Amino acid sequence: MYRTHTCGELRIDNVGQEVILSGWIQGVRNLGGMTFITLRDRYGITQLVFDENTSDELKEKTAQLGREFVVKVGGKVIERSSKNPKMPTGDIEITVNNLEILNKSEIPPFTIEDETDGGDELRMKYRYLDLRRNPVRANLELRHRMGQEIRKYLDGEKFMEIETPYLIKSTPEGARDFIVPSRMNPGEFYALPQSPQTFKQLLMVSGFDRYFQIVKCFRDEDLRADRQPEFTQIDCEMSFVEQEDILTIFEGLAKYLFKEVKGLDFTEQFPRISYEEAMNSYGSDKPDIRFGMKFSEITKLAQGKGFKVFDSVEYIAGINAQACATYTRKQLDALTDFVKRPQVGANGLVYVKYNEDGSFKSSVDKFFGAEDLQEWANFMNAKPGDLLLILAGGKDKTQSALNDLRLEMGDRLGLRDKDTFAPCWVVDFPLLEWNEDEERFFAKHHPFTSPKKEDLDLFETDPGKMRANAYDFVINGVEIGGGSIRIFDADLQKKMFAALGISKDEAEEKFGFLLDAFKFGAPPHGGIAFGFDRWCSVFGGSESIRDFIAFPKNNSGRDVMIDSPSEVDAKQLEELALNLKKPDLK
Amino acid sequence: MYRTHTCGELRIDNVGQEVILSGWIQGVRNLGGMTFITLRDRYGITQLVFDENTSDELKEKTAQLGREFVVKVGGKVIERSSKNPKMPTGDIEITVNNLEILNKSEIPPFTIEDETDGGDELRMKYRYLDLRRNPVRANLELRHRMGQEIRKYLDGEKFMEIETPYLIKSTPEGARDFIVPSRMNPGEFYALPQSPQTFKQLLMVSGFDRYFQIVKCFRDEDLRADRQPEFTQIDCEMSFVEQEDILTIFEGLAKYLFKEVKGLDFTEQFPRISYEEAMNSYGSDKPDIRFGMKFSEITKLAQGKGFKVFDSVEYIAGINAQACATYTRKQLDALTDFVKRPQVGANGLVYVKYNEDGSFKSSVDKFFGAEDLQEWANFMNAKPGDLLLILAGGKDKTQSALNDLRLEMGDRLGLRDKDTFAPCWVVDFPLLEWNEDEERFFAKHHPFTSPKKEDLDLFETDPGKMRANAYDFVINGVEIGGGSIRIFDADLQKKMFAALGISKDEAEEKFGFLLDAFKFGAPPHGGIAFGFDRWCSVFGGSESIRDFIAFPKNNSGRDVMIDSPSEVDAKQLEELALNLKKPDLK
Repeated sequence: MYRTHTCGELRIDNVGQEVILSGWIQGVRNLGGMTFITLRDRYGITQLVFDENTSDELKEKTAQLGREFVVKVGGKVIERSSKNPKMPTGDIEITVNNLEILNKSEIPPFTIEDETDGGDELRMKYRYLDLRRNPVRANLELRHRMGQEIRKYLDGEKFMEIETPYLIKSTPEGARDFIVPSRMNPGEFYALPQSPQTFKQLLMVSGFDRYFQIVKCFRDEDLRADRQPEFTQIDCEMSFVEQEDILTIFEGLAKYLFKEVKGLDFTEQFPRISYEEAMNSYGSDKPDIRFGMKFSEITKLAQGKGFKVFDSVEYIAGINAQACATYTRKQLDALTDFVKRPQVGANGLVYVKYNEDGSFKSSVDKFFGAEDLQEWANFMNAKPGDLLLILAGGKDKTQSALNDLRLEMGDRLGLRDKDTFAPCWVVDFPLLEWNEDEERFFAKHHPFTSPKKEDLDLFETDPGKMRANAYDFVINGVEIGGGSIRIFDADLQKKMFAALGISKDEAEEKFGFLLDAFKFGAPPHGGIAFGFDRWCSVFGGSESIRDFIAFPKNNSGRDVMIDSPSEVDAKQLEELALNLKKPDLK
Repeated sequence: MYRTHTCGELRIDNVGQEVILSGWIQGVRNLGGMTFITLRDRYGITQLVFDENTSDELKEKTAQLGREFVVKVGGKVIERSSKNPKMPTGDIEITVNNLEILNKSEIPPFTIEDETDGGDELRMKYRYLDLRRNPVRANLELRHRMGQEIRKYLDGEKFMEIETPYLIKSTPEGARDFIVPSRMNPGEFYALPQSPQTFKQLLMVSGFDRYFQIVKCFRDEDLRADRQPEFTQIDCEMSFVEQEDILTIFEGLAKYLFKEVKGLDFTEQFPRISYEEAMNSYGSDKPDIRFGMKFSEITKLAQGKGFKVFDSVEYIAGINAQACATYTRKQLDALTDFVKRPQVGANGLVYVKYNEDGSFKSSVDKFFGAEDLQEWANFMNAKPGDLLLILAGGKDKTQSALNDLRLEMGDRLGLRDKDTFAPCWVVDFPLLEWNEDEERFFAKHHPFTSPKKEDLDLFETDPGKMRANAYDFVINGVEIGGGSIRIFDADLQKKMFAALGISKDEAEEKFGFLLDAFKFGAPPHGGIAFGFDRWCSVFGGSESIRDFIAFPKNNSGRDVMIDSPSEVDAKQLEELALNLKKPDLK
């Protein structure tokens, strides 16, 4: 037997018991006649003590021990003379009378501590050692807990988990597919799913009514920071529902997870923010509503006063940074530099200090008197002591830049605490999105997304104005999920394809089997998909999804631990009837 | 709102309520002035009634309805005059005052009934309609229930579900990999996992202690009947355990599933049968122990009596088919034909009828007298009225053929009821398997499987005799799962590689990163993997795993519904730096 207890289990009540523990050597401290060893496993750390009564043989063994050796020890639980209240097992220790080295360890390339000395690359190469560290293990424990609780909730709501295939069909739509050559069908390929979208809609046609799956999805994209070629989705679909039904069920899921996983009670309905309001107030369709600082548009107020920069633009708006009128020149310059960064893209920043004494000091004093500025201040709900930060330019670009500035100010003012959670729904997304390059509309969500009934007339008159029954779920400015009510009516679908410039033949080729299925009695249905990695990372208070994936890939799509992708045998390619284009360049 | 209730929900207590239901038209019966319509959804069937009070408008609508139309109806729950005790909703019906056709349906290519008129191929092409049928839906409901309960049990036992990657590295070992070309690393490939074996062992090195995952695996094999290129595994691994710990935990899982999913109590320990005993008694390492009819070897008893066929062979054994002495010539001929089939491969069948009157009649009366046959009968525990069926030949081949005959007799005698479950463990598998063609040993399980301690000396003297800490879980003659205790000691691993003829360089190339990981303190560990599709099919009483997969592939690895695999755009291949070998042959 390797153990009677785990290393996280023993308490003062166990004093006097003979126990067996197994685990890894965390540390060895020699204090003259006494040796203290900390033994670690997944469940915790227990202190072992070797004192003057320890046999010579045992002492010799302990002298051989190094960090990360695997040992099994037998001994008696005793009360510690100096207790450690920070450790759950801190009231006790084990006087060891038996020690067996189960396995040795080379010296690890970095320390297995909460704060390690290992750099990112080294830790990824030795990910199996990185995973031994408490914070990383805690992340995966959180992920495990999330997965189990999600299933518990959805099972309780009568959702059926149904596995859809991984070897599916490539469609030249959306992101790039990973493809898989078929040996049994030479010259043909499977594709790995970017999402089970069509399959879940087929399952609704099949009458499964409520489907979910926690499932890997694949996208062969050029990886931006924090994107992974394989990622996990909580994929859900329901029949005989309207948007409201879906929001209710999945707001329920979110509240359940907040409660079960984070211990947080959300009793009120989550805020629902229209896409339009989100853009106008936050400049983003994934607003971080942990703090206010909403945009105020002052285009009308600020134009016509002779300030050419303002007079020539489409849009002028600002935020009110409360109690920041005392910002120094240096601080304001830093903010100006921030908004001028290419990633943010503003041309400059206008500030208005509303001083405690009621006076104003602004970067546009030449053009605007105290009366003008007072008007802005009133409009923007500023009080003496506040600082107004104003950007101007094209509407979309300026909203985007002001969003960045707002988040930056939120960070600077400590308004974005990772342990505070502010969930919301963003609803009423536009149905279509105009693509300047191709001069045509694209589906904002996907081509099966249903328009709002009240907007149907706009198909003929102004399709760009149509709103969709589409919704995103956002926590702390991070898009956690999104979905839509689907079109299930053949005529409406035709109109939609027409608006997207998709011909009948093209529709047939791309979505043929789904359209065929819809001929046999498709129910009204809709769904949502959540990014599981992302949800875990937000709950874990991290910005990186990699921290919540056991074996992530780097930004070149490589797994540096197993050194993959890699070359394959010529025989394998032969069997697949494939040639490499440049076989001799490597 | 689409519904206040589902079609499976209404009972006599609901009489008098106004309800809204949505679903598919199962059938329409016109009985003069009355029309009865059955409305179906996932949850059940409810009868709608339209009588003389029905408005003309509504009557007109019902006249348009066809099978599988999707409708929403409003009406009042009333008590049926002639109740249907076979239907959960059979006490009530709905008098409809409102009907909306949500979607029409073309006439389905086969009937959506428990017993359909659709052939296999047609049902696969229209799988989304096949899935509407009760038995198929029930299979996937069983699968869903299994998945949830497995997670509940393992979570309760402190197993963590950890997702391992799908884009991994090809290893030219075992079955053939599916490979995935990497665009970002031209000329290089990922492989899809055949199992997460190495990753779960790495997770043990990482200290996760108890891991599981319900996960898709991939094998590019020439498909035999009922094999799928992608299949689902319940993959588990534990640290600081011996074989007994693993058997205990997973016997617990099986008992829990029998109880929760099938309502069956298994209170006794499952039988544990050594590999040797399984082969000697059943001729199979996955014995169906729903019935006895064990083999009796009579080589010594039967040789030396002048019957050349017997005298010249390695092995003679038989089974006792109780109360079958009355078998006719025709029945016995059929059995002889059965064993002579190429798949079974015996040369002939010897029978001995032990008649009710105590006399014997056999196909070898010329060589064996009543005394001889009585001796056989005694040895084989036969009573008057029994029939002995005997095969002779090489030991392996004869055991295999006698296994087939035993199962055939089990079927003929009704001893293999699909609702009776007989689980067992098969243990003490051989460590190595001699390959005649390559004249070397292969690992029976895999190269990390640990030999039994007491057999270690055999490495030098008789490696073929070594037994492994390996075990299979079998229900009703179907292998549901298998696993082993792993080698975690570097020296022992070296010996194992030596026995397998794997050089140091080869080991480094194939298992390098796992061997590297083992240098940093690998704990003793072991695990098991269950075939999830298979387990579902056995619980569901079916021999086909395809019945328990929502969207299975056919025997050529094709999904005929979505028509995959398929050709891809030249541009996709271009991006992947690949050429097809015979681009113009298609």
